[in-house]
Amino acid sequence: MTEVETALLADEPAILSDLMDYCRIASVSTDPAYAPEIARAADFVAAQLRGAGFQTVERIETGGHPAVYAERCDVPGAPTVLVYGHYDVQPPDPLEAWQSPPFDPTLRDGRLYARGVSDDKGPLLIAIKAAAAFTRVRGSLPLNMKFLIEGEEESGSPHFAQTVARLSERLSCDLVLSADGAMWRADLPSVMVAGRGLVAFEVRLTGAGKDLHSGRHGGSAPNPIRVLTRMLAALHDDVGRVIVPGFSDGTAVPDPAILNAIRHANFDPAAYFVSIGAELPDPLPDAETLLRRQWLEPTLEFNGISGGYAGAGTKTVIPTDASVKITCRLVAGQTPDSAARALEAELRRLTPTGYRLEFTRHGPGSAAFALDPADPALALAEEVLGKVLGAPPLRVAMGATIPIPDVFRRALGVGTVFFSFSTADEDYHAPNEFFRLSSLRQGLVAWVRLLDRLGGMAPEDIRAVASQGAVRKTSRE
Amino acid sequence: MTEVETALLADEPAILSDLMDYCRIASVSTDPAYAPEIARAADFVAAQLRGAGFQTVERIETGGHPAVYAERCDVPGAPTVLVYGHYDVQPPDPLEAWQSPPFDPTLRDGRLYARGVSDDKGPLLIAIKAAAAFTRVRGSLPLNMKFLIEGEEESGSPHFAQTVARLSERLSCDLVLSADGAMWRADLPSVMVAGRGLVAFEVRLTGAGKDLHSGRHGGSAPNPIRVLTRMLAALHDDVGRVIVPGFSDGTAVPDPAILNAIRHANFDPAAYFVSIGAELPDPLPDAETLLRRQWLEPTLEFNGISGGYAGAGTKTVIPTDASVKITCRLVAGQTPDSAARALEAELRRLTPTGYRLEFTRHGPGSAAFALDPADPALALAEEVLGKVLGAPPLRVAMGATIPIPDVFRRALGVGTVFFSFSTADEDYHAPNEFFRLSSLRQGLVAWVRLLDRLGGMAPEDIRAVASQGAVRKTSRE
Repeated sequence: MTEVETALLADEPAILSDLMDYCRIASVSTDPAYAPEIARAADFVAAQLRGAGFQTVERIETGGHPAVYAERCDVPGAPTVLVYGHYDVQPPDPLEAWQSPPFDPTLRDGRLYARGVSDDKGPLLIAIKAAAAFTRVRGSLPLNMKFLIEGEEESGSPHFAQTVARLSERLSCDLVLSADGAMWRADLPSVMVAGRGLVAFEVRLTGAGKDLHSGRHGGSAPNPIRVLTRMLAALHDDVGRVIVPGFSDGTAVPDPAILNAIRHANFDPAAYFVSIGAELPDPLPDAETLLRRQWLEPTLEFNGISGGYAGAGTKTVIPTDASVKITCRLVAGQTPDSAARALEAELRRLTPTGYRLEFTRHGPGSAAFALDPADPALALAEEVLGKVLGAPPLRVAMGATIPIPDVFRRALGVGTVFFSFSTADEDYHAPNEFFRLSSLRQGLVAWVRLLDRLGGMAPEDIRAVASQGAVRKTSRE
Repeated sequence: MTEVETALLADEPAILSDLMDYCRIASVSTDPAYAPEIARAADFVAAQLRGAGFQTVERIETGGHPAVYAERCDVPGAPTVLVYGHYDVQPPDPLEAWQSPPFDPTLRDGRLYARGVSDDKGPLLIAIKAAAAFTRVRGSLPLNMKFLIEGEEESGSPHFAQTVARLSERLSCDLVLSADGAMWRADLPSVMVAGRGLVAFEVRLTGAGKDLHSGRHGGSAPNPIRVLTRMLAALHDDVGRVIVPGFSDGTAVPDPAILNAIRHANFDPAAYFVSIGAELPDPLPDAETLLRRQWLEPTLEFNGISGGYAGAGTKTVIPTDASVKITCRLVAGQTPDSAARALEAELRRLTPTGYRLEFTRHGPGSAAFALDPADPALALAEEVLGKVLGAPPLRVAMGATIPIPDVFRRALGVGTVFFSFSTADEDYHAPNEFFRLSSLRQGLVAWVRLLDRLGGMAPEDIRAVASQGAVRKTSRE
C-alpha cells in the first residue's frame, strides 16, 4: 500500500463526514423549487476541489444549472484526464416511503442512506478525495487533472453537450474518467461498456375547458382520462413491447459480446422479481429474454400519470385534462429525434376529435452508446478493479443512460471510461437510496491506483484508440 | 305580496351577509384535513335555526360528520314538512383555477362566487330564512316544520340512510322538501322528477414493491401505469359506453315522459360543447342522443388518475403503483351492489399475473330514483314556481344523483319534492362555483309561498300518494 493510500484510508472518517454534509444539500435539478439548493451543492463541490489543491476552480454558466470546472495541469509530459460527475440528484418523493429523511444522511448497517449518495455524490467525492490525497502527501498529482461536474444530469443534461462543445479547448484531455455510472451487481465485479439512450416526453390531453360535474355531464362530456388511457393502451403489445409504428426503425443488431455476457451472467428471473418486490409473472420469462429487455431493447415507460382529483375520498368530477410523463430508452440505431417523431405522430393519430393533445419533449435526449473494447485505459481500469475487488470484472451493458461518452467523443475526440463505485441495487432513483461504506473504501483505493497507473502512460498511447474513431455503433440526433 | 314576503325582501342584505359568512367556512367533507371546518359549519347552521325560532336544535351524531336537526311543531292540524339540505361542500381544488379564493365569497356581476354557495349553502339558507320570516312577522310558522341537514352529502352520504332509519319516529312528517338539487337551466323553469344513482370506487394496481429506475429496469419490471391504462381502456367502447359484462343487466326501459321532455327540450349539441369549453366532436351527436347519455344511461367515469412522478420536469422512475378513482351513475334497474360486483369481477379478470389489484368501494352508494308524477305537493310546487319564475316549469330528469328521496320514502313513507334554487350551470363541482343573487330573491319568495300553501292543506291529502307506494321504478341495494 502506497503512502497516498495509507493517508487516504486514515482520513476516511473525515471523508465520510464531508459526504454527509454534501448529502444534506437537496440539489434536485428537475424542480425549480430547489434552485437555492442547487447553488449550494455547486459551491460545496467547488470548495472541495479547492481543498484538494486545484488552482483553478470556476463556476461555469450553462444556460441552466451551472457546472463546476477545476484544473491542475502541472505535470509536463504526463497524460491529462478529465473527471466527469454531477452534483444534482433525483427528486426525493414519495417522501413517506423513506425510513429516514432523504436529506438527513443516516448510517445503518454499513450503508449511508440519503438521496443522491449513490448517484452521484459518493462516487464523485471519491474522485476528488483521491486527488486531494496526492496533493497532500506528495505535493503534486501523478498526472494532469481536470474536473467537469454538471448540475443537470438528472434532468437529462439539457445544456451539457453545448457547454462541452463551447469549452472544448479548455477541456482538452487524453481521456475522460466518469465518476458517474454504476456497477451492475454488488456480488459481481463488472465494467459497463454499453448503455441505452434516453428521451423524455410529457403528453397532456384536454377535453372540456373546465372540470365538470360527473353527474350532470357524465356520458356526454369528454373525459380525458378515459381517452388518454385508451391512447396509451395502444402503444405496447400484451407483453409490454413498444408497437409505435416507426419507433424501432433502424435498430441495430445487438453486439454479440454483450449477448454472450447475458448468457453467462447467471441471472435468475425469479430472484429478480423477488428482489423488486413484485409477484412472479406466469409464465416467467427466461433469463436471456429478461436481460435482453433490460439492456438491448427499446422501452417506452410511463413514469407518472395524473389528472382529476387525487385527494382523499372521492370527487364527482370529470377533469379538464390528464397528463402522462414518458421516458423512452433507446438502443443503437434509434435517435431521440426519430423516437420523438414516431411517438408524436402515433399519439396525434390516436387523438379523437373533441380532444386537444399537447406533446412536449423534455431536453434533447441522448442516443445509445458503446465503449471501445480495445481502449487501453479500459484495460488499466479492469486491472485495478480486479485487484481491489478480488476478481476480474465482467464487461456488461446496462439499461440506463449516461449520455456523456458520446458528448466527449464528439467535442474532445477522446474516450470515456466509467469508474464509479455506485452499485445498481442502491435504489438511486427510488426511496431509501444508499451507498455502501465498503464501496467508499474500495473506490478511494482504486481511484488512487488508477490515477497513479495512468500517470505512467504516454498521452499518445491513451489517445490512440479514440482518435481512430474506434467502434462507433451509435448515432446522434 | 304578503307581509312576510315584504319583510323578507327588506332583510335581503342581512341574508346575503349571513350567506357570505356561511361560505367562509371550508366544510369539505371528503378530506379529513377539513374536519374542524365541518364542525364550524354545523354550528353555523344550528345557530341560524335557533335564530329562526326553532325551539329544538340538536347536533345528531351519525358515525361520520354530524347532522343538524331542528323542529318547531306547534300548529295543530297542519301538515308537517321535513326540510332536507347539507352543509358540506366539494373540495376546492384545483385552487389555481379560481378567480377569487374559494372560501372568500366574492360578488361579481350579480353572482356570489364561493365553494358551496350553490351546492347547497345558498339554497339551504333560503329555506331557513323563509321560516325565520314567518316566526318574526307572524310569531308562528304556517305549518309544522323539521330540518335535517347532513354533513356528508358530497362524500356519498355514507351514514345518512341509517341515521334517518334510526330517527324515523322523530323525523315523521307528511312530506320532505329538499333544498338540495338544482334547476336544469337558468333559462328554463323546471322541476326534477328523476335522477341517476351513484356508486364510487378506487382501484389501485401495484407492480414492484418500490419505485424502480426506468433505465435499469425498463422493459423487464412491471409498470402499473402501463397495465392499469390497458385495463381501463377495456371498460368502454369507442364512444364511451360502458362495456363491463353484467354492469347494465336489468336496466329498465326509460320513462316515456322523460323521453318526451328530451325531444322538446330544444337542446343544442354544438352549444353544449361550446358551453363546456370543449372542441366539437366529429360527428356531432344529436340532441336526443346526448340528453339520453346525460339523463338515462349509466356511466363509468374516471374522476382522477395518479401514479408515479407528478412534479415539474421528468423523473426516470417506474412507479410501484397507479390508482384511479371511478364513479358510476346508475339508472333504474341497476343497484350499487350489482354495478360493484360487475366492475370488480371485470377488473380482476383483466389483471395480469405479476400485478396486485386493490378494489375499494367508497360508501354504500345509491340507486336511481323517480318521483311520483301524481304527487299533490309537486303540483303545488309547480304552481308556486310558475308564478315566481314567470312560466310553468318543465318536468325533467337529471344525470346527477340525489339519494335522499329513496331514503326518506323507505324510512318515513313519504315523498320528496325538490325545491332548490341552485341552477346546474353554477359550476358547483368545479372552480368558480357561484350562486345568482336573482335566485336568492326568487327562492326566498317561493319558499314563503310554498310553505304558506302547504300549511293550508290537509296532512292526509299530502300523504295520500306516497302511502300508496306510488311509482316505484327504483330498486335499492
